[in-house]
Amino acid sequence: MILDLISRPSDIKKLTLSELVSLCSELRSEIIRITSTNGGHLGSNLGTVELIVAAHYVFNCPTDRFVFDVGHQAYAHKLLTGRRDLMEKLRTSDGASGFPDPLESECDAFIAGHASTSISASIGIAKARDLKNRLLVTNSSESDLMEGDPARRTGVYSNVHEDLSTGSTKQKTDCGEFGKKSEAFKVISILGDGAMSGGMIYEALNNIAYIKDFIVILNDNQMSISESVGAMRRYLSKLLMSRKSLTLRKNFRRFLDSMPRNLATSIESLVKRSLIVVKGSNIFEEFGLQYIGPVDGHNIAELIEVFKNVRDIANYKPVLLHIITRKGMGYTAAENDSTKMHGVDHDKSRRYSDVFGKKIVELARADEKIVCITAAMKNGCGLREFADLFPERFFDVGIAEEHAVTFAAGLAKEGLKPFICIYSTFLQRAIDQIYHDVSLQNLPVRFIVDKAGLPGHDGKTHAGIYDISLLQNFDNIHIFSPGSRGDLEELLDVMAGEISYPCVLRFPKAESFEVLHDEIVQGTCTLIISCGDLLRNILEAIEMIDNGDSPTVWNLKILKPFDFELFYKLAENHERILVFEEGVFGGLSNIISEGLIKDNKIELLCKMKFYNVDKNPVKPSSRSEQLKNCHLSPREIKEILQG
Amino acid sequence: MILDLISRPSDIKKLTLSELVSLCSELRSEIIRITSTNGGHLGSNLGTVELIVAAHYVFNCPTDRFVFDVGHQAYAHKLLTGRRDLMEKLRTSDGASGFPDPLESECDAFIAGHASTSISASIGIAKARDLKNRLLVTNSSESDLMEGDPARRTGVYSNVHEDLSTGSTKQKTDCGEFGKKSEAFKVISILGDGAMSGGMIYEALNNIAYIKDFIVILNDNQMSISESVGAMRRYLSKLLMSRKSLTLRKNFRRFLDSMPRNLATSIESLVKRSLIVVKGSNIFEEFGLQYIGPVDGHNIAELIEVFKNVRDIANYKPVLLHIITRKGMGYTAAENDSTKMHGVDHDKSRRYSDVFGKKIVELARADEKIVCITAAMKNGCGLREFADLFPERFFDVGIAEEHAVTFAAGLAKEGLKPFICIYSTFLQRAIDQIYHDVSLQNLPVRFIVDKAGLPGHDGKTHAGIYDISLLQNFDNIHIFSPGSRGDLEELLDVMAGEISYPCVLRFPKAESFEVLHDEIVQGTCTLIISCGDLLRNILEAIEMIDNGDSPTVWNLKILKPFDFELFYKLAENHERILVFEEGVFGGLSNIISEGLIKDNKIELLCKMKFYNVDKNPVKPSSRSEQLKNCHLSPREIKEILQG
Repeated sequence: MILDLISRPSDIKKLTLSELVSLCSELRSEIIRITSTNGGHLGSNLGTVELIVAAHYVFNCPTDRFVFDVGHQAYAHKLLTGRRDLMEKLRTSDGASGFPDPLESECDAFIAGHASTSISASIGIAKARDLKNRLLVTNSSESDLMEGDPARRTGVYSNVHEDLSTGSTKQKTDCGEFGKKSEAFKVISILGDGAMSGGMIYEALNNIAYIKDFIVILNDNQMSISESVGAMRRYLSKLLMSRKSLTLRKNFRRFLDSMPRNLATSIESLVKRSLIVVKGSNIFEEFGLQYIGPVDGHNIAELIEVFKNVRDIANYKPVLLHIITRKGMGYTAAENDSTKMHGVDHDKSRRYSDVFGKKIVELARADEKIVCITAAMKNGCGLREFADLFPERFFDVGIAEEHAVTFAAGLAKEGLKPFICIYSTFLQRAIDQIYHDVSLQNLPVRFIVDKAGLPGHDGKTHAGIYDISLLQNFDNIHIFSPGSRGDLEELLDVMAGEISYPCVLRFPKAESFEVLHDEIVQGTCTLIISCGDLLRNILEAIEMIDNGDSPTVWNLKILKPFDFELFYKLAENHERILVFEEGVFGGLSNIISEGLIKDNKIELLCKMKFYNVDKNPVKPSSRSEQLKNCHLSPREIKEILQG
Repeated sequence: MILDLISRPSDIKKLTLSELVSLCSELRSEIIRITSTNGGHLGSNLGTVELIVAAHYVFNCPTDRFVFDVGHQAYAHKLLTGRRDLMEKLRTSDGASGFPDPLESECDAFIAGHASTSISASIGIAKARDLKNRLLVTNSSESDLMEGDPARRTGVYSNVHEDLSTGSTKQKTDCGEFGKKSEAFKVISILGDGAMSGGMIYEALNNIAYIKDFIVILNDNQMSISESVGAMRRYLSKLLMSRKSLTLRKNFRRFLDSMPRNLATSIESLVKRSLIVVKGSNIFEEFGLQYIGPVDGHNIAELIEVFKNVRDIANYKPVLLHIITRKGMGYTAAENDSTKMHGVDHDKSRRYSDVFGKKIVELARADEKIVCITAAMKNGCGLREFADLFPERFFDVGIAEEHAVTFAAGLAKEGLKPFICIYSTFLQRAIDQIYHDVSLQNLPVRFIVDKAGLPGHDGKTHAGIYDISLLQNFDNIHIFSPGSRGDLEELLDVMAGEISYPCVLRFPKAESFEVLHDEIVQGTCTLIISCGDLLRNILEAIEMIDNGDSPTVWNLKILKPFDFELFYKLAENHERILVFEEGVFGGLSNIISEGLIKDNKIELLCKMKFYNVDKNPVKPSSRSEQLKNCHLSPREIKEILQG
C-alpha cells in the first residue's frame, strides 16, 4: 500500500502522479472501512480526497497552516498526517476526533467543529505572521515604521498604501522588504460551501483585503448539509457557468481585431470605460480576493497544477480557489443520497427528534399559524415530513443561526407560531439574538433544542451542555425538558397553544424513553429531581436497589418557571434532595438557588446535592459512556442513592 | 410650528413641499435642543431627518412596518409618531428610550439596540404577512396549495417558481392572486451603513430573494461609528462613483447611434453577451435585490420622488435604496467631528476606558507582541492613542464581534498577545466563538469588557449585566474585575504577561475609583465580598455607619479562579457573608456555589447573602439611579449592613 509509505505529509511529495492516483483510491477505501465501523461523515470525506492529497503535494504542512471549515471533511488529512492508528479508533475517547484539533496534531492549525470560522482564524494567523516578520525587520533596521506614521491609520490595511502605489513587480520587492523572512508560510483555509451561509464568513471577507500568502480553498460540493439554500448557493452555481463567458470575450476580441485599428481602439476604450463599475463583478473580487475557478476537484493532475499557480499568485494578493467536488465520490450509495451520507448513523427510528417531527406535523395540520425554521438541519431535527407537507411554512435558512432566530422573532411579531429547530451547541451562535430580539420583546418564539446534553462521538466541539445555563439568564424564557416521549408530546401541545412567552424545549440525541411517568411518584426520605431524559437512568437505578425504601421522584418537565410552591412542600418531607441535570452546573441549580435566595430559604440548599455534567471538554465516546463518566449512568446513580 | 400639527405620521402627508422643508428644520432644532440636555446620539439623528420625513410622507406607518437598524437614528421618527412629550425626557425612566421599542409605540415595528438585525426581522415580518395572505386565499378557495406540491420544496423560495416562469406584468397578477388582500403592507428596513459589516446582514441577504413589498433603505453616512472599515465600505464608495458610469454608458449609446445600423447592432449584441456574467455586478443584485441609488439624503423633493418609485418597484421584487446622508447635517460641530458627535457625552477624563487606554499604550511600548482589536469601538474603548501610535498592531474590524473574537484567537495561536476590546452587551454576539475558538483551544486571548454592568441612559438593549454569568460556563476562562484604577493597572500587568489561559477583565462605564484598597481589609462579624467598581459604594456605605464595628472587606479582583482557600479561612471568622456583584445572579454566585458543592461545604451558603442586578429589563436612567434600584447604592448598602 502506498499509504504505508506516508508517515508525514512531506512523503507525499516523493510520489509519482500514478502513485498519487492510487493513494487517493486507498484513502477512499480506508475512509469507507473506518466509517462503516465507527460512524462519522462519509460523503464529505470521500469528496475531499484529491483536494487534500494535492494540497499536501504542493504545500508544506504543518509549516503552511491548514485551517479546515467545517471540520468534518478532514479524514484524508488525518490519515496523511501520522494519525492512521488514531483513525482506527475514530470518534472514541482514545482515538482521533472526527474534527481537526491542534491538541491532536500540529498539522491541524485550528479547531473546527462549528462552521464559518476558518477565514477569521486564518486572518489572525496571517496577520500575526506578517506582524512578526515586520517586527523582525523593523527591529534590525531600527526604523520607526512601527510608530507615528499617520498615513497608516488602521492596522487592517497596513499594506494598502504600498500596494496601491506600486506595480505588481515592485510589490514583490516591498513584500520582501517587509518580511518574507523565517516565517513566510502560507495560510490555507479549506472551506466547505455549506459554511458560506454563515455571517462570520462575510465579516471575515470584509477584513481580508491585502493579506498575502493567504489562500481560501472553497470546496463546493454544491450543497450544504441539508440542501442548497440561499443566494450564495445560486451565485456559486452561476460562477460554474462562467467558463462560457470566457469564450464570448474571446469572440469579442477577435471581432475587434477584424476592424480598422482606430475604430477598434475607440470601441474598446468606450466598452472598457463603461465597464469601470461592473469590472470587479465577482463577489469575491469585490472583497479583494483573486477568484480562480471553478476547477475539477477530482482530477489530481489539474489540482496540482492549479495549486502551484495559486501558490504563486498568493505572493501578491489573497486568492479564493473554487473547487468542485462530489460528496460521496467513489461510493455509489453516498453519492446518491448525499444527505443520508453526510453522517453515518444508526437507530433513527424513535429518537426524540423523530417524535418531535411526527407531532409537529400533527399540530401543524390543526393550526396554520405553525411554521418551522431550521439552520441546515432539516433531517437532523426530524423536519423532513413537515418540509414535504408544508413547504410554504418551512424555512431552511442555511447555516445561519443568528439570522434564523431574529427571523423567527419577526414571524412571531406578526402572530405566527415559529418553531425554530436547532442543535444545542449551534444555538450558542445566537445567544445575543435570543436576548435582544426575542426575550426583550417577549416574543413567543418556540425553540426546539435538539442534541441537548452530552455529545456522544462528536465530542467536545458539539457538547450541548451549556444551553440551560446560558438561557436561564433571560428571565421570561420558559425552559422545558421532557422526561419521556409522552412528556415531549404533551409539552409540544403547550407550546403550540396561544402562549405569550418565549420558550425552549430541549432533548438529547437519543431513543425516546417510552415509560410515561407521573410528575411526582411519592416515596420517602430522598427527593430526586429528575431533569429530562435522565429520568430513564434514575428509574433504572431505583429498580436496581432492592431494599424497601423508594425515593420520591419528581419528573421535572418545566425547569423554568420552577414550581417553588411544590418544591417547598416536598422539601419539608424529605431528608435529602438530589438534583440530576444533563448540563453544566449553573442551569437548573442556578434557577433553584436564585429562587431560594429571594424567598429567604437558602438553608434548604444544605440538604441538596447537585449532579451535573463536568465543564471540562468532553472526549468522544458513546453518550452512555459519557453519562457514566459524569456519574449519571444507572449504576452510578444507584451508588449515589445508596451513599 | 409645523411640528405642532403632526400628532400622527399621516398628518405629514397633508404638508406642502415648503412645509416639509420647514418641518425638517424644526426637527433638527428639536433634536439639537433635546440631546444638549439629555445626551444621546446627535450626529446620526441629524443625518436622517429628511429621510424619515420623506418616508412618512410616502409610506403609511404603522401599517407599513418601519424597522430601524441600528436604532440610534430614529429620534425624528419618534418626534413624528406621537412621542414629543416622551422625547422631552429622552433616555430617562419615564421618557422615550434612545432606541426604537415596540413597547413604546406601535410605530416601532421591532426593537433595535444591537446592529445588523433589521433585515432578518423584516424578512420574518414579510414572510408572516405573505403566508397569512396566502392562507386567506387558500382557505377561501379550499385549494390544496398548502400541501403536497413537491415543486415547492422549501418555503423560503415558495414564490420562486411563479416568479421565474412569468414576466413582470404577469407576476403582478400572480401576486394579487396569492395575497395583496387585507395586509398588503410594506416592510421597510432602515439600515445604517455601520450595520453592513455585521454577519447577520449577509445571512439575511442570503435569504431575501423573491420577497415583495420589501424595502431596505441603506442610510449611508459614509462611516461606521469609529471610521470606515472593510471591503463593504469601499464597495459602497465605489457605488457612489457609478453615476459617472451612467454618463459613459450614454456616450456609448450615442456612439453606437452614430454608426451604420448593422455594425452597431452586432457590436451591441457582442458587448451585451460578453456582459452576461458581469451583468448582476452589483453585490446587492447578486442577492436578488433591485439596487437603486445613490440618492441625496438631504433633498426632500428628490427623496419623495424616489420613495414613490421604490414603492412601485417593490411590488415586483425587494429593493435596496442607497441614500447618502451627512452625519450631523445642519449642525456644524457635529458635522466636523462625526465620531465625537456620534454620542453626546460628558466627563470622559478618567473613565476606566481611559485608564485602560493609557496603560495599554505603556504595555505595548514594552512588548511588541501586544495587539489590540475592536469592533467599531475605538474611541469608546479608549484605543485612540494606541491606534495612532501602533497602527500596524491595531485592528478595527467593524461591527463584527464574531469575526473579532475568532480573529483574536488566530493571533493568539501564533503567539501574539491580543487584547480584544468590546462592550459587554455586544460581547453576547460572540459567546460561541469564545467557547469554540478560544476556550476549547485554551488560547490566551485577553478580553477587555467595557461598559460591563448597568447600562445607564442607553437602557435595556445595552445592559452589560450578563457577561460573568455567560462566561463562567467555560471553565478555563479567568475573570478579573478591578475595584479601582490601581487594580485595573495591576491586572493589566498580569494580562500582558506570558499567561497560558484566556481571560476577561470587566469594568463599567464610569469614572475610575481612585482609592487603592488592599485585597483584604480586616474587620469583624460581617465579611463583604466586593466585586469590581462596587467597592466604591461599599466603602462609602461603611463610612456612613458610625458605630465601632467595621466589616471585613474583600476587594475581589479575581472572580475566577475564585480563591476558595482564602474564602474558607475568612468564612470561619465571620457570622455572615455578603456578596455584591454588578451583574445578574448566576455569575460570581454560581462560581462560589459550584466550588462549595465540590468541596462539600454547601452549608456555608446558609450564612451568605447575594446582592445582584435584577434580571428584568433595565429602564434608562443614570447608572447611580439604576444601582439604587438594585439595592447597590451606598445608602442601600448601608441599610443592608445595618439590617
